[in-house]
Amino acid sequence: MATISLQEIAQHDKKDDLWVILYGKVYDLTQFLPEHPGGQKIILKFAGKDATKAFERQHPPSIIDQYLSPDVCIGQAEVNNEEEELQEEETEEDKRVKLAREKMPRLEEMYNTFDFESVAKNILKADAWGYFNSGANDEISMRENHNAFHRIWLRPRVMVDVANIDMTTKMLGDKTSFPLYISATALNKMAHPDGEKTLAVAAGNQGVIQMIPTLASYSIDDIVGARIHPDQPQWFQLYVHKDRSIAKRMVEHAESKGIKGLFITVDTATLGRREKDMRQKYVHEGPAELQGEELNREGGVATASSGIIDMTLNWKDIAWFKSITKLPIVLKGIQTWEDAVLAARYGCAGIVISNHGGRQLDFAPSPIEILPEVMDALKREGLENSLEVYIDGGIRRGSDIFKAIALGAKGVGIGRPTLYAMAGYGFKGVEKLLQLYQDELEMCMRLMGARTIADIKPEMVDTRNLKDHFVANPTDYLAKNAYEKMVPRGNISKL
Amino acid sequence: MATISLQEIAQHDKKDDLWVILYGKVYDLTQFLPEHPGGQKIILKFAGKDATKAFERQHPPSIIDQYLSPDVCIGQAEVNNEEEELQEEETEEDKRVKLAREKMPRLEEMYNTFDFESVAKNILKADAWGYFNSGANDEISMRENHNAFHRIWLRPRVMVDVANIDMTTKMLGDKTSFPLYISATALNKMAHPDGEKTLAVAAGNQGVIQMIPTLASYSIDDIVGARIHPDQPQWFQLYVHKDRSIAKRMVEHAESKGIKGLFITVDTATLGRREKDMRQKYVHEGPAELQGEELNREGGVATASSGIIDMTLNWKDIAWFKSITKLPIVLKGIQTWEDAVLAARYGCAGIVISNHGGRQLDFAPSPIEILPEVMDALKREGLENSLEVYIDGGIRRGSDIFKAIALGAKGVGIGRPTLYAMAGYGFKGVEKLLQLYQDELEMCMRLMGARTIADIKPEMVDTRNLKDHFVANPTDYLAKNAYEKMVPRGNISKL
Amino acid sequence: MATISLQEIAQHDKKDDLWVILYGKVYDLTQFLPEHPGGQKIILKFAGKDATKAFERQHPPSIIDQYLSPDVCIGQAEVNNEEEELQEEETEEDKRVKLAREKMPRLEEMYNTFDFESVAKNILKADAWGYFNSGANDEISMRENHNAFHRIWLRPRVMVDVANIDMTTKMLGDKTSFPLYISATALNKMAHPDGEKTLAVAAGNQGVIQMIPTLASYSIDDIVGARIHPDQPQWFQLYVHKDRSIAKRMVEHAESKGIKGLFITVDTATLGRREKDMRQKYVHEGPAELQGEELNREGGVATASSGIIDMTLNWKDIAWFKSITKLPIVLKGIQTWEDAVLAARYGCAGIVISNHGGRQLDFAPSPIEILPEVMDALKREGLENSLEVYIDGGIRRGSDIFKAIALGAKGVGIGRPTLYAMAGYGFKGVEKLLQLYQDELEMCMRLMGARTIADIKPEMVDTRNLKDHFVANPTDYLAKNAYEKMVPRGNISKL
Amino acid sequence: MATISLQEIAQHDKKDDLWVILYGKVYDLTQFLPEHPGGQKIILKFAGKDATKAFERQHPPSIIDQYLSPDVCIGQAEVNNEEEELQEEETEEDKRVKLAREKMPRLEEMYNTFDFESVAKNILKADAWGYFNSGANDEISMRENHNAFHRIWLRPRVMVDVANIDMTTKMLGDKTSFPLYISATALNKMAHPDGEKTLAVAAGNQGVIQMIPTLASYSIDDIVGARIHPDQPQWFQLYVHKDRSIAKRMVEHAESKGIKGLFITVDTATLGRREKDMRQKYVHEGPAELQGEELNREGGVATASSGIIDMTLNWKDIAWFKSITKLPIVLKGIQTWEDAVLAARYGCAGIVISNHGGRQLDFAPSPIEILPEVMDALKREGLENSLEVYIDGGIRRGSDIFKAIALGAKGVGIGRPTLYAMAGYGFKGVEKLLQLYQDELEMCMRLMGARTIADIKPEMVDTRNLKDHFVANPTDYLAKNAYEKMVPRGNISKL
Repeated sequence: MATISLQEIAQHDKKDDLWVILYGKVYDLTQFLPEHPGGQKIILKFAGKDATKAFERQHPPSIIDQYLSPDVCIGQAEVNNEEEELQEEETEEDKRVKLAREKMPRLEEMYNTFDFESVAKNILKADAWGYFNSGANDEISMRENHNAFHRIWLRPRVMVDVANIDMTTKMLGDKTSFPLYISATALNKMAHPDGEKTLAVAAGNQGVIQMIPTLASYSIDDIVGARIHPDQPQWFQLYVHKDRSIAKRMVEHAESKGIKGLFITVDTATLGRREKDMRQKYVHEGPAELQGEELNREGGVATASSGIIDMTLNWKDIAWFKSITKLPIVLKGIQTWEDAVLAARYGCAGIVISNHGGRQLDFAPSPIEILPEVMDALKREGLENSLEVYIDGGIRRGSDIFKAIALGAKGVGIGRPTLYAMAGYGFKGVEKLLQLYQDELEMCMRLMGARTIADIKPEMVDTRNLKDHFVANPTDYLAKNAYEKMVPRGNISKL
Repeated sequence: MATISLQEIAQHDKKDDLWVILYGKVYDLTQFLPEHPGGQKIILKFAGKDATKAFERQHPPSIIDQYLSPDVCIGQAEVNNEEEELQEEETEEDKRVKLAREKMPRLEEMYNTFDFESVAKNILKADAWGYFNSGANDEISMRENHNAFHRIWLRPRVMVDVANIDMTTKMLGDKTSFPLYISATALNKMAHPDGEKTLAVAAGNQGVIQMIPTLASYSIDDIVGARIHPDQPQWFQLYVHKDRSIAKRMVEHAESKGIKGLFITVDTATLGRREKDMRQKYVHEGPAELQGEELNREGGVATASSGIIDMTLNWKDIAWFKSITKLPIVLKGIQTWEDAVLAARYGCAGIVISNHGGRQLDFAPSPIEILPEVMDALKREGLENSLEVYIDGGIRRGSDIFKAIALGAKGVGIGRPTLYAMAGYGFKGVEKLLQLYQDELEMCMRLMGARTIADIKPEMVDTRNLKDHFVANPTDYLAKNAYEKMVPRGNISKL
Repeated sequence: MATISLQEIAQHDKKDDLWVILYGKVYDLTQFLPEHPGGQKIILKFAGKDATKAFERQHPPSIIDQYLSPDVCIGQAEVNNEEEELQEEETEEDKRVKLAREKMPRLEEMYNTFDFESVAKNILKADAWGYFNSGANDEISMRENHNAFHRIWLRPRVMVDVANIDMTTKMLGDKTSFPLYISATALNKMAHPDGEKTLAVAAGNQGVIQMIPTLASYSIDDIVGARIHPDQPQWFQLYVHKDRSIAKRMVEHAESKGIKGLFITVDTATLGRREKDMRQKYVHEGPAELQGEELNREGGVATASSGIIDMTLNWKDIAWFKSITKLPIVLKGIQTWEDAVLAARYGCAGIVISNHGGRQLDFAPSPIEILPEVMDALKREGLENSLEVYIDGGIRRGSDIFKAIALGAKGVGIGRPTLYAMAGYGFKGVEKLLQLYQDELEMCMRLMGARTIADIKPEMVDTRNLKDHFVANPTDYLAKNAYEKMVPRGNISKL
Repeated sequence: MATISLQEIAQHDKKDDLWVILYGKVYDLTQFLPEHPGGQKIILKFAGKDATKAFERQHPPSIIDQYLSPDVCIGQAEVNNEEEELQEEETEEDKRVKLAREKMPRLEEMYNTFDFESVAKNILKADAWGYFNSGANDEISMRENHNAFHRIWLRPRVMVDVANIDMTTKMLGDKTSFPLYISATALNKMAHPDGEKTLAVAAGNQGVIQMIPTLASYSIDDIVGARIHPDQPQWFQLYVHKDRSIAKRMVEHAESKGIKGLFITVDTATLGRREKDMRQKYVHEGPAELQGEELNREGGVATASSGIIDMTLNWKDIAWFKSITKLPIVLKGIQTWEDAVLAARYGCAGIVISNHGGRQLDFAPSPIEILPEVMDALKREGLENSLEVYIDGGIRRGSDIFKAIALGAKGVGIGRPTLYAMAGYGFKGVEKLLQLYQDELEMCMRLMGARTIADIKPEMVDTRNLKDHFVANPTDYLAKNAYEKMVPRGNISKL
C-alpha cells in the first residue's frame, strides 16, 4: 500500500474530491459522502485531514469495513511527527463540562430517572445532549410518550398476602429478572467512553436483556464480548441497509455471535427532523459554507432522505429475512392495530409498538395508548398467542411498567434513560437505574396486590382517560414563545 | 390643471374640508375620509400636507384611480424646494429595527415557521407587526387555528415502499408542486419593499399558486408582471366594493390579466376589532384630537362599520358574479356545513373554510375543526364532487397539511408566515419557508406510508379529540392578567 | 333633644355599651352592632367617636332611618370646634392612589372591559378593590363565570345582508337599546363619589336599564332623581330584611318612585367568605382587639350568620310579596332548573340565573352553563312563555351577550365592570363601557349573520364543551402556591 | 443490671454490632436495625452513642417495651458527667426556624387550611416538613386528592328556610359536632412538643373524634389521658405488626383504655417512596457511609420492604381480629368497590376509602372519585346499611365535606392539616382549623338549602366531570423540569 504525503491528501478537500485519514489510512469518501447517516457536514469538516479523533468519539473501527468497499482505501498516510506532540486545547465547552462533573451529585442521590436526566443535561457536551434529548419537530410525541401514562390510573387491591413478589418473566424464551429490556440507541460513546459495553455489563448484573444497535459505537463483537455471563441473552436491532448484501452479512454475523432476537426497525424510512439538535449543531459547529442540509436539497426534495436505509422495505421482505436467519423476527416501530395484525399474519415472532422515542414523526401516538387497540385486534383475530407485544417510549417509572403489563405488553424497552445514567455514572449508573425501575415495580406490585407478573390484570388499571390528550404539558412551546401575549392596559406586573 | 400654493393647501386641514398632496397632485378627500379602510386617523394626520411617503409605504399609485373619482383631484401642488433637502430624522423605532436587523440570524438557521415569526417580531416596525400579528378581541380564534391541529393525531402505517413520493396535485385545474397556496394578505409593503411581488417570485420558483389581494401594496399589473413563468397560475381575492361598478371593473381587469380563480371574501361584512393593533396604534401614533374610532361613532352604532365593503352581499349576488366573469368562483370565509352546501347549490367552484386568520370574529371555530363536518354534509347531499374545499388558518407544519388533506381538503392556504418570511429575508425567505412546508410534508407522507396525495386517507388521522377545545394555550390572557391571584398567608415565593 | 358632651360620649366605647356620632347626632348602636352587614369591626373602630366621615364614604344618610328605630338616637353631640380645623393627614395609601391616578390612561385607551378592571386595580383604595374584586373562598366560581363562555363557540353564517342591525329589545316590558342591564352592586361610593347616581346617568344616556341596590351608597330617591329622562326605567333589588315591616316599607317606597321591577335576591341566606377581602381588611385595618369574626362566633356557629337578611325566606313568601306590590317579581339567584320551574309555578315574572358574581358559594356553577338546562326544563313543562330568564356573572364581551341570547336569555346583567369603569372615569367611563359592549355585540351579530335579536338562534352556538370544566385558568392558586414543587436533582434553572 | 463504660459502648458502633444508649440504659439493636420503620440511617448515626435526645423528638419511652424484647437491654450506661454540661449548639436551621417563628402571622389571620400549610412550611424544620408534606413518587395522587374535588360542582337550592342548621351526626355510634374526624398521622412531636395530646384537647373542645396512630410520639395512655371529657370518643389506628402477639397486645390495650373503634390500615404492605422526603434527608443529614437505602438492598429486592408491618395480612385475618376484640373493625385504605364489598361480607363495621394521603402508591385514585362507585356497588349488593363508609385525603374546604356527604360518606378524616395547624399554633391552631372547616360547612349547607346532614343529597352535586383527570395542577413537575423547552430562534424573552 502506497504512502501518501499529507500535502497531497490536503489537496482533496472538496465535496467532489474528498480524502480523509482514519487510523493512518487514507480513504476516498467522495461516493460515500451523501450516504453518511450523520450528515455530510461533519465529514466535510475533515476533508483532506485526519478525522480519527472525531471518528473514535462515535464509531467502532469495524464500521469502516462494514459500510465501505475495500477499494476506497487508497493508501497509507505519511506519519505526522509534529502533530503527535500537539495537545488539543481545552474549549469553553470542555471547561463547562469539567466544572459540571466536579459538582455532580453522588450516585446515591439519584432517586428516579429524572434525576439522571437532569444530571446528564449538565455534564454532557452540547452535541451529545442535543442528539440524545431531541425529538421530532415540536417534540409533542416525545413528551406525550410519558405523559400518556399519566392518563392511566391504578385500582389497588388490598388484603392480599404479598410477602413474596416474583417479578421474573420470559421474553422471546429467555428469562429476565423483570419485564424490561434495554433498547437500542445509537452512538453511545457520546454518552460514555465505554458506550454499549457499559450496558452489556449492567444488563448482565441486573439480569435483563440488552438490544444491540446497528449504529453502535462499538462493534457487535465488542459488545457481545462485554457480557458478564456466557449465556447472557442479547438482541440485535437492524436498520435494513439498502444494499441487501450488507444487511444479510449483519444478520448472519449477529446470529453467529449468539444473538437471540432480531429487531427490525420499520419506522425509519427517512430520518425525523430533530430541530433542537439541528439548531444545537448550528450553534456549536458554526455556519459552514456547505451546510449538510443545503447539500441534501441538491438532489431535489424527493431524494433528500436518501442514505443507508432501504426506503423500499415492505411486507414482502419478511419472507426474505426468514430465508436468511432462524432468529425470531420482531418488528420495531409498529404503530397501528392494522400493522400488528399484519405482522402476526406474516409470521413475525413479535412487535415493538414504538414511535422511536418521538424522534421520527411528530403526532405519532404514544405506544401505551395504542397498546389496548393492538391487543383487542389480536384477540379479535385470534392472534393473541402468535405474537409477543412490547412497547417502548416514555417508560420512566415502575408504575409505567405495571400499566404496560396490565394492558397486555410482554415487556417494555427503555432507551434515553440508560444514556443519561451512563453519562454520569457509567455502568454503576445504569445498574442503579435498573434497580430503581425494579424497586418501583416491586413496590407497585405489592401495593396493587399482585404477586407475580401473571397477576397483573387489565382490570387493575383505569384507562378511561387514555384517549383524551390533555394532561400535563402537551404545550407547543414554539407557538407559545412566538406568540405575543395580550396585556391589559394599566397592568403593572405583566405575567 | 391649476397649481395650488402650499399655503393654500395647508388651510384645508379639517375633517370637513380636507386636502392632501399625493405624488404632486392635490386631492380633496373630504368625502372619502369615512370610507378609508385603514381608518380616518392616518389621513387626518396629513390633512393639508404631503402624504406621499406614508402612502407609498402601503399602497400602489394605481389605487388612487381605482377608488377615487377623477374630480377629487383638484390641482397640481406647488413644488416645495426646501423640503426636498430635508432628511427624515431617524426615530428610536428606526434605531431599534436597524439594530435588530444587524443581529438577525442567517436564513439557514430558520428551521420552522415559528423561527420566521420570532425574527419578524424583532425586526418589523411596531405598526407592521401590530397589523400582521393581531387577531380579533382575545385572539382565542387566532390561536385556536393552529392549536386545533394539536388535537389530531396520526396513525402511521409502516412496511410500505416509500422510495418515491409524489406530492403534486391540481387546484382549480392548475398543477401545484404540493397542496399549498399563498393566500391573500393586505399591505405587504409593510413587511418588505417589494411586497406582493416577492410572493410572485417565490411562488413561481417553488411551483405553488399565489392569491393576489384586493388590498395589495402593488397593483395587480405589477404583481402579475412579477411572475417568473408566463404560465404561472395566480388567483385574485376580492373584497366586494359597495360600488358594484368598481367591483365589476376589478374582476374584469383580473380576468383580462390571466388570473385563474376568483376568491370572494364573505366573512368581512365589518372589520373585526384587533385590539392589540389598536393599542399599538395608539401608543405609537399618540392620542389624536380626533380619534378614528370616535369619528366612526358619530354616525351612530348602526353605521359604524361602513367603508368600502358591501354589507348587503348575499347568496343572490352569486348569479351577478357569474354574469360578469367566466372565472371559477370560490367563496372565502365559509364557516359552517350549511353554508358549504349552499355554496355548492349556488354553483360555486369551491370554498375556503376560513375565519380570516382569527382576525374577524373571536370564537369562530378553527377551519380544520369544521372541515370534517363540511365533507360529511357534502357527501350526505351528494355534492362532494361539485366543490373544491380549501382551508386556511394556523397551518404551521407539514403535518398540518397532511391532516387537512386526510380530512378532505384539496389544499391549504398560508397567510401570515409569508409576511414573516419576507420581512426578514425577502423572496429567498419565502422560498425557504415553502421548502420547509414541503420537506415536512414529504417526511410526513413517507413516515405515514403515503406515496401520493391520493394515498392520504381519513383513517390515517385520529380526530377523536378534535371537538374538545382544551389543548395547548387557549388562555384568556386579559382575564388572567387582570385577575389578582390569591396567595396564602405566609407564602414566601409568590408564583 | 339633649346635647351630650364629647367626654361623655367617649365613655361609651365598648361592645356592650356603644355610642357613635353621625351627622352631629349621638346613636346607641349596642343592639345594632351584631346586625351590621359590614361587620362589627368597622363600628367598633369608632366606638365613642364621630364616625360621619367613614359612614359617608359608603352610606346615604337616609339609611339611618331605614334600619334604626328612632329611639336609638339619644341626643345631639357637642360641637367640636377644634377638630374642624384638623386636616386629615395623607396616608401612604392616599399617596399611592394619587400617583396612580396621575398616571391613569386616557379613556380613549380603554379597548375592552379588562382594561377598566386593570385601571381600577391601580387606582382604587385597597379596601374598595378588595371588596369589589373578591369572590367566595378559592374564587373558582368567580373565575368560572367568565371562563364558561370560553367553552361556547360560534357558528357564523355568511352571505346574509347585514347592512342594518337592530339590537333593541324589551325587558319586563320596557325598551332597551340592547339586551343588557346594569345589575345591583353594593356601596358604589367606594368606587366613585357619585356612586349609583353615576350609573343612572350612564344608563339613561345609553338607553339601558339600571337595577338599584338595597345596599346603595345613595338613597333610592337620590338615584331615581339622577335619571336623565323622566321615563327612564329602573329596577329595584331587594335583600329581604328579617323585619318584614322594613322590607314592606322598602318595596312600597320603590313602587311609589316609579320603579318598574322588583328583583328579590334569593342566594344570600348568609354572606359568603370572601377571603381576599378579609385578608385585605386585616392587613389594612390592623389587628383589632375584638375581631368582627371572633365576635360573630360568640353566639355559636349556628347564629354566626345572623344580620339583617331573613334566613327563613321560602317559596311561601312569594304570595306575601304579591300581596304588598303590583311590581313584577323577579327572583335573583336561581341556580337550578328545578327552582326555575318553581319560580314560574309560584307566579314570578322572571328569574335571574346568578351565583352572585361568585361571591357567595364557591363551586356554584356559572349561570351560562345552567341556562340551557333551565330553558329545556321550562319548555318541557310548557312554562317557557311564563318567565323571562336573565343571567348575570362573567359577561365581559359582546360575544358573551350573543351566546346568552342564543341559549334563551332575555338579557344579561353586568356588575363589577360598571364599578371599575366609574372608578376611573365616572359616568363617562360607564358610558364607554356600555358602548364597548354594544359595539362588540353589533359586530358579533353582523359577522354571525343575525340582523335582529330574534335572529339569534340556539343553532348559532356550539355548546358541546359547555359541561366540561377545564378551560383557561380554573387554577386553585392557594393549593398551588402552598404546594412545594418537586425539582429533580441537578436541575439548574428551577421553574 | 451491669453498668457499662462509655468507652466499651463506643466500641459497638457497627452495623453487625450495634449498641445505643436510651434514657441511661444500653440496648443492643443489631437485630432490630433492619426492622426500624424510620430506616437504619438514623440509628447508625448514634451507634455506640447516646440517642436519647433524637429519640425523644419522635417517640414515647413506652415504645421501647412495645417493640423490643427485654433481653436487648444489656445494662446501665456509665453516667457522663462532662457531657451534661454541654450546650447543644444552634444550627443554621435552628436560626432559620427561630426567625420564621418570630415573623409568624397571628392565628386570627388564618382564613383557610392553606394558610396553615404555608405557615408550617416556613416554621417547621426541614426534616419535619419533608416527612409530613411529601407523597409517593411524583406526588400526583397526593395532589389529585384535593384536585378531584374541583371536578365536582354544586347545585344550590334556594328559597328554603335555613335559619337553623344542624350539622351533628353519629360515627360508629358516637356523636360528633360535624361529620369530620381527625385521622391518624405518625410522629406528631415533630410538629409540636405536645404531639398527639394537642389533638386530643382540640378534638374534645370542638366535639370531634380523634384517631390515635400506632406510630404516635406519645403512648396511647398519654393521649387518652389528654382528653378533656371523660366520655370523649377516640379511635385507634393499627399497623398490624408481623409479630401477631404484639398486634394483639396493642388491640387489647386500646380496648382496655376505652377506645371506640379499631381502624386497621390495609394499604401499607410496603412503605411508599416519598422522594421529596428522601432527598431532604440526604441533604440535611449528609451522605452516610452506609445509606439506609443501600442497606435495605443487601437482602435483595424481594426483602427490601421488610420491617414491622405484616405483609401477609389478608381477608382471612378478619376472623382473627374479631376473635381478639369486640371493637368495631374498620378497614382503612380500601380503594376499589370490589374490596368494599368484601369488607362488608367479611363483617367489618366500616371502611375508609383512602390512598394514605397519596403517600403510598402514586396513581392510586382519589378517594372522592372512588366513593360513588363504592356506594353504587354496596347498593347493588344490598350492603349499603352494613357498612359505614368514610373517606380521607385532600379535604381542605367545607365544601369538600359537603361533597363527600352528598356522595354517600358518613364522614371524612383529615390528616396533614392538623399537623400544620399544631406546628404553628398548638391546640389553639387545631381548634381554629376545626372551626374553619365547620364554619365553611355550615355556610355551604345554608347556601345549598340543606338544614341537616340528612338533607344533603346526591342530586345536589354535579359529578359529570369527576372521572376526567384534567383539572388544576396534575403537572408532572419532574418531567417538566427535566425537559429542555424549545425556544424559537430570535426569541428575546424566553419563557
